[in-house]
Amino acid sequence: MSASPSGAGAALLGGLFARGAAAGAATDEALLQAMLDVEAALARAWARAGAISPAAAEVIAGACRAERFDVSALAAEAARHAQPVVGLVAALRDAVGPPAAADVHRGATSQDVLDSALMLVARRAVPAILADLQAAAAAAAALAQAHAATPMTGRTLLQPAVATTFGLKAAGWMTALDDAADALARVWAEVLAVQLGGPVGSLDAPGVVQDVGRQLDLVAPALPWHADRRRPAELATGLALATGASAKVARDVTLLAQGEVGEVREGGAGGRSSSMPHKRNPVAAVSALACAQRVPGLVATILAGMAQEHERAAGAWQAEWPTLLELLRSTGSAVAWIAELAQGLEVDADRMAANLAHLPAPAPDTGPAAALVGRALAARRERAQRLRP
Amino acid sequence: MSASPSGAGAALLGGLFARGAAAGAATDEALLQAMLDVEAALARAWARAGAISPAAAEVIAGACRAERFDVSALAAEAARHAQPVVGLVAALRDAVGPPAAADVHRGATSQDVLDSALMLVARRAVPAILADLQAAAAAAAALAQAHAATPMTGRTLLQPAVATTFGLKAAGWMTALDDAADALARVWAEVLAVQLGGPVGSLDAPGVVQDVGRQLDLVAPALPWHADRRRPAELATGLALATGASAKVARDVTLLAQGEVGEVREGGAGGRSSSMPHKRNPVAAVSALACAQRVPGLVATILAGMAQEHERAAGAWQAEWPTLLELLRSTGSAVAWIAELAQGLEVDADRMAANLAHLPAPAPDTGPAAALVGRALAARRERAQRLRP
Amino acid sequence: MSASPSGAGAALLGGLFARGAAAGAATDEALLQAMLDVEAALARAWARAGAISPAAAEVIAGACRAERFDVSALAAEAARHAQPVVGLVAALRDAVGPPAAADVHRGATSQDVLDSALMLVARRAVPAILADLQAAAAAAAALAQAHAATPMTGRTLLQPAVATTFGLKAAGWMTALDDAADALARVWAEVLAVQLGGPVGSLDAPGVVQDVGRQLDLVAPALPWHADRRRPAELATGLALATGASAKVARDVTLLAQGEVGEVREGGAGGRSSSMPHKRNPVAAVSALACAQRVPGLVATILAGMAQEHERAAGAWQAEWPTLLELLRSTGSAVAWIAELAQGLEVDADRMAANLAHLPAPAPDTGPAAALVGRALAARRERAQRLRP
Amino acid sequence: MSASPSGAGAALLGGLFARGAAAGAATDEALLQAMLDVEAALARAWARAGAISPAAAEVIAGACRAERFDVSALAAEAARHAQPVVGLVAALRDAVGPPAAADVHRGATSQDVLDSALMLVARRAVPAILADLQAAAAAAAALAQAHAATPMTGRTLLQPAVATTFGLKAAGWMTALDDAADALARVWAEVLAVQLGGPVGSLDAPGVVQDVGRQLDLVAPALPWHADRRRPAELATGLALATGASAKVARDVTLLAQGEVGEVREGGAGGRSSSMPHKRNPVAAVSALACAQRVPGLVATILAGMAQEHERAAGAWQAEWPTLLELLRSTGSAVAWIAELAQGLEVDADRMAANLAHLPAPAPDTGPAAALVGRALAARRERAQRLRP
Repeated sequence: MSASPSGAGAALLGGLFARGAAAGAATDEALLQAMLDVEAALARAWARAGAISPAAAEVIAGACRAERFDVSALAAEAARHAQPVVGLVAALRDAVGPPAAADVHRGATSQDVLDSALMLVARRAVPAILADLQAAAAAAAALAQAHAATPMTGRTLLQPAVATTFGLKAAGWMTALDDAADALARVWAEVLAVQLGGPVGSLDAPGVVQDVGRQLDLVAPALPWHADRRRPAELATGLALATGASAKVARDVTLLAQGEVGEVREGGAGGRSSSMPHKRNPVAAVSALACAQRVPGLVATILAGMAQEHERAAGAWQAEWPTLLELLRSTGSAVAWIAELAQGLEVDADRMAANLAHLPAPAPDTGPAAALVGRALAARRERAQRLRP
Repeated sequence: MSASPSGAGAALLGGLFARGAAAGAATDEALLQAMLDVEAALARAWARAGAISPAAAEVIAGACRAERFDVSALAAEAARHAQPVVGLVAALRDAVGPPAAADVHRGATSQDVLDSALMLVARRAVPAILADLQAAAAAAAALAQAHAATPMTGRTLLQPAVATTFGLKAAGWMTALDDAADALARVWAEVLAVQLGGPVGSLDAPGVVQDVGRQLDLVAPALPWHADRRRPAELATGLALATGASAKVARDVTLLAQGEVGEVREGGAGGRSSSMPHKRNPVAAVSALACAQRVPGLVATILAGMAQEHERAAGAWQAEWPTLLELLRSTGSAVAWIAELAQGLEVDADRMAANLAHLPAPAPDTGPAAALVGRALAARRERAQRLRP
Repeated sequence: MSASPSGAGAALLGGLFARGAAAGAATDEALLQAMLDVEAALARAWARAGAISPAAAEVIAGACRAERFDVSALAAEAARHAQPVVGLVAALRDAVGPPAAADVHRGATSQDVLDSALMLVARRAVPAILADLQAAAAAAAALAQAHAATPMTGRTLLQPAVATTFGLKAAGWMTALDDAADALARVWAEVLAVQLGGPVGSLDAPGVVQDVGRQLDLVAPALPWHADRRRPAELATGLALATGASAKVARDVTLLAQGEVGEVREGGAGGRSSSMPHKRNPVAAVSALACAQRVPGLVATILAGMAQEHERAAGAWQAEWPTLLELLRSTGSAVAWIAELAQGLEVDADRMAANLAHLPAPAPDTGPAAALVGRALAARRERAQRLRP
Repeated sequence: MSASPSGAGAALLGGLFARGAAAGAATDEALLQAMLDVEAALARAWARAGAISPAAAEVIAGACRAERFDVSALAAEAARHAQPVVGLVAALRDAVGPPAAADVHRGATSQDVLDSALMLVARRAVPAILADLQAAAAAAAALAQAHAATPMTGRTLLQPAVATTFGLKAAGWMTALDDAADALARVWAEVLAVQLGGPVGSLDAPGVVQDVGRQLDLVAPALPWHADRRRPAELATGLALATGASAKVARDVTLLAQGEVGEVREGGAGGRSSSMPHKRNPVAAVSALACAQRVPGLVATILAGMAQEHERAAGAWQAEWPTLLELLRSTGSAVAWIAELAQGLEVDADRMAANLAHLPAPAPDTGPAAALVGRALAARRERAQRLRP
């Protein structure tokens, strides 16, 4: 963690809720640049299709740099149109000047640009989430390996039940994190798509769609999907699986770190209290839980908006923009916290052993748990083989 | 629609909210039978593993019929234990009698039975949802084909924009419904899994897990997943995609059926008003929207519960039971309504043509839209080839 | 708890999720009777207004008994009309026969009957919720009084912080429960209203509205509120405050009852595990948390439906019916569990004292906490004076 | 609308989602200043209580200006502690210097400052929401008065039903907006409270609590409410009622403004399309719907967090901070849009009359509707009398 965050993390609450690289890639500023990247790719695709001149495309593409635009003015224009593209296209035309100005935004509707840009923001932000999930899962795997046979109390309904091993608990975290990564990677690879359909989705230019998709590294769909919101919904639910897996780890850590339990402790410098020096707060776990807490409501907003009207919705579509950005930031933050947490977690096997006294049979057979851990780790190695290019 | 529904559909509001075969398969009664089916499969698997006698397994399996149990008594016992399995196992042991009684529920914990049973309920209910999605998509495909070049007003933000064709709109419905079916079919095939881990998830009996999985037609997972709720979450979100796609169709139909628009009408006998004979209510669309409206909140409940404590959660797990049943019923009902709606939809191409007068350029070129429809239908045929066994 | 529940509680999961008197009063059956009660009150009000004969009104009212109607047939009719009132009115007219049949449902639209009936169901169910909140708060007050100076560990972020007293914790529960009761009592007294507006809400019959309101003990509003959903929304949020306060108590109890903490235990016979006799599960707390977990999503469904179309919504209104019933059942169950829990809670002051050893300063001054408890109890007595008739 | 928004509204999407004065008062920056205002009030209260010197209090208060603090550094510190107060107090102590530094934050815990600050942000932001609700309701009242007898089609389930008047529809909007304002005004006056309890809520200093409350214009509660989240929940639901009432108006306007209906049009300069000059988009209504769409999920997040652990929650509390800020911004924006919309709405009585042709009885008696409007307007005048100081 750097001493002075920048971007989304620099806001007062950003240290908690906009942590990590994904959060930094899912800002209003990143959306603006993505919108411009869509316009640039569109111009180049039309040029390759022979519809505009290559020179015009390069002039347009050259102007597509977010730092050249006045965001306040764009925001004011966005308020006049209930979307920011009309104003951006006008500003881009001004920046480009004649004759290329006439070739800006060719064939496209505002929703083409915004939807493609949001997909592009996700395309850029999700790899950091996948990397943090992978780091967290790897750390959990190491814990599972190291503690495959470390006995601890298994707890159901928050009551001591029978013994298990810490390795098995960590293997459960690992599996959930890996599965979440697989699900989100599938969304990243198969779901994030370019949008290009013109005013009512009837643009018939498959070559241009594919060209834009290639440039932006997005799927080229068979049909425009202006009012078919499966893609944002799958992105949202894919992110929710990642936060859910992260929150499970965090929940366990907050419980295991309780003073009366004392079986794990977060590493790192955070969490010391000046007024209460005996206290070491589970800062990463608490922060991850806070980020995760926000996600189900955000997902519900996206899902509730799927019943969109006709060729472009009046409200439900627009609500997706800030909601998707926040989902990316909240998820990115949650997994960033969990990666740090898992990598630095301190395990107190002695306390685990001592706490077994709460069970009637304190001398557990750890063999079955260790065997399960072994199989889970083997399955993970096979998965790694499978994913290797 | 039968005159007298039975099961879930027979409750006063069941005609709307528990329609179709999936709703009938996702009731408390179905859950009870599924729990018994899990116990039966478990006994047989242990018998095949040599742990209990085949005779005992058959005695147990023979007793696993829901109609033999007193549901009120089970409900009372469920209240004593915060779950219905303890009481059911006791009642099943009573029904079986010695010596087989001792072999009932071997190695299992209550969560094994409940989780497996809920997965089994979903396994049985989802095919009806897939069938209705398929029927709806097929009907939409027929509409797309028939009206590929039927001009109509494209509408954005609920304003007339430029012309499109009704076929393109129907092709959008079709694609969304097919995609939802694909996503849900993947959940059905890959996600729904048996749960078998014993009190704290450390049961090491992979052969038994696989045997139970084969018997119940559920995935056999590498690890128990007592506190890793990806599977319920993916089920919930898979269902939400199906209701979302359905709700989009329903929204369009309610809007197109407005008196001042008049471009479509629901077929069928429903929706006539005795007091207002001129009125023909879009009963199926309204009902589908009502069912779909309930789904995002239910999904949020499942997602919010993923941060489960330790080896079995205190509250968040239990909340899944009625929520998953309701998700299956609500989704099943929504898609059942949409299948009927799509199959009976009456299209008024003359009104579509007349309404084009609201556009400045009322003589549209329907060629691009028709080309897109053609490609979408071709993609659908390829998909059908791909899915064919 | 009776051995054999009936009604809503008799379903397999009803022991957990449909506990207590409010759940029993918020069923499909109760809704049917409430619809009939509305029809009866309407007839009598028109009779008093001179529009129909008193004899006809009495014939109608006499027929308004739910057990006389075929619910399956009504459900089938409900599916034909996307609402159950058309079928019910037809059946009621059949039951009444000429000439009074013509006076059934006079001036009313289906939504008048359904909305009034849902309000009436709430009017009948909420007092049981208030009684359970009151019982729980009274039990918490007794705990606060008895343990005003019983030292225990105060815990923040699930870490031992500094000492507090159990009485102060219980006073916090008490205050939250009392405040929730006050908020819900206000909804009960001021918000639950009759609906009577005719087909599009333009019925001008204030005397009849007031008469029906008097009969059903509901507020008589200035305007019909067919598409103004503040009342259902306030009911939903009032219920959510009650479950929220209940869930806080339950959360604390599950944490305090952990084996390693051991500071409280649920009383009563429930929660013993046959396979793990050392274990005593916090059955009431777990069940209350499970019920409460379902509520935020249900509230979101109601709130998301407030943007209703024109004079009667196409989907969002209909979705309220099962959602409100479930909110009443879930809330009723949660508070019923909490009342039992609070009344039977066993407090282990010795363990509380022993656990203080986790703090650096284990000899706390309990004076300030006790003083706060004293003031909170005094405030409660003043509140009781204020509420006394 | 100014050409160049500032603050929250200046972000790219801020023109839509951070419109109006409430949004500007509910930013991270405003929260920081509010935290400092709490510290200043606390110091002065302790000085009046004789615990610190008046000079020290004034030194502290003088340093409590947000612009003097390095937000990036505070954000970094917030990440170390899972909350921003520890870092702020340290920075404030640095700014103050000895000896007054030792008197900073006396008796308080971080949650005291954050909770009080969030309440203070709400206290400052809500009046703008109330003003916009009032402006919108007044505009609706004027429409109701002017069009009390203007006949139009009443529509149920999006079908023409029977005639009503536009005045009655506007009176419904008015009533809903006024009722939402009343509910939110009650929250503003009675619910927003100071938090001051020290590390575990056992601070016994009622005089200081009341003094801080007086300074900050917040309620002084009987007990600290660290883990009793009724107040944030009531704030959230109060805001949701306001967005719900706003969304109802917006929904109706989008529907009435459809090309085929054409009964209303938004005034103002917005919404013209350069590429489709015939089109006039309902920009305000769409934007209000977009803002409102986000609210139910945010409310669910707050409600789901009420089951907080012990004396300070590990995650659920922290999640409230950005969520409450967003609720204030989303609600503020929604009502700002609706106030503009209602004030500028253009009504086409001729189209309303023409569209009555879709009804079988096109010559309606508008008397009852007009009478209802009259009573609703009279009730509004009485309400105004009642609210007058």
